[in-house]
Amino acid sequence: MLAATRAFYAAFEAADLDAMSEAWEHSDRVSCVHPGWTVLRGWASVASSWAAMFNGPQRLQFILTNESVVVHGDTAWVTIDENILDADSSATVTAINVFTLVGADWKMVAHHGSPVMTG
Amino acid sequence: MLAATRAFYAAFEAADLDAMSEAWEHSDRVSCVHPGWTVLRGWASVASSWAAMFNGPQRLQFILTNESVVVHGDTAWVTIDENILDADSSATVTAINVFTLVGADWKMVAHHGSPVMTG
Repeated sequence: MLAATRAFYAAFEAADLDAMSEAWEHSDRVSCVHPGWTVLRGWASVASSWAAMFNGPQRLQFILTNESVVVHGDTAWVTIDENILDADSSATVTAINVFTLVGADWKMVAHHGSPVMTG
Repeated sequence: MLAATRAFYAAFEAADLDAMSEAWEHSDRVSCVHPGWTVLRGWASVASSWAAMFNGPQRLQFILTNESVVVHGDTAWVTIDENILDADSSATVTAINVFTLVGADWKMVAHHGSPVMTG
């Protein structure tokens, strides 16, 4: 579970589409909300969003804090804060990541990240 | 599952803390992200946030759209758009709601809502 979470954020930081693809279940039931976006559903849409993001110039670095893992049978969800650094700013995104167990591997089935409004 | 989702939003609209309490699992593992907030964990914190919200003057009306339900064993997650109307504005929040089956009832274990930035 922690390994699956780490793999997801490592893929995100590296802008590595193969590694991101490996982190996810490839099915119609997956969903992804990037901060401020509407929901994307199905692996084709989700993969396209990562491809578009990774093709862009922006590279993000994450400092992950406040992580909590709940395992419930062959499903798990991780709530976590993504403290994001890029070239000239920083922000905090709070996320929930849902995984299901496939053989020995946890695969992501839902990701929902949203901006934390401070102040 | 649809009934549990409906019950959650009906409690929210009615600002009915008893009904909201009924919709949730009462445990340390529950989590809730209100739009723009950081994550709240544990039923005590989550319940307090609803109590504070319901004690305030604001009453919200939801038009729920774009709903998708995934059932995976005794866990389920619902992605949904909350089109929110209040006295003088409207906004769209996209949410994921995670439920687990307890006896014959689906209980909410995680809610994460975030503003959809249009433009």
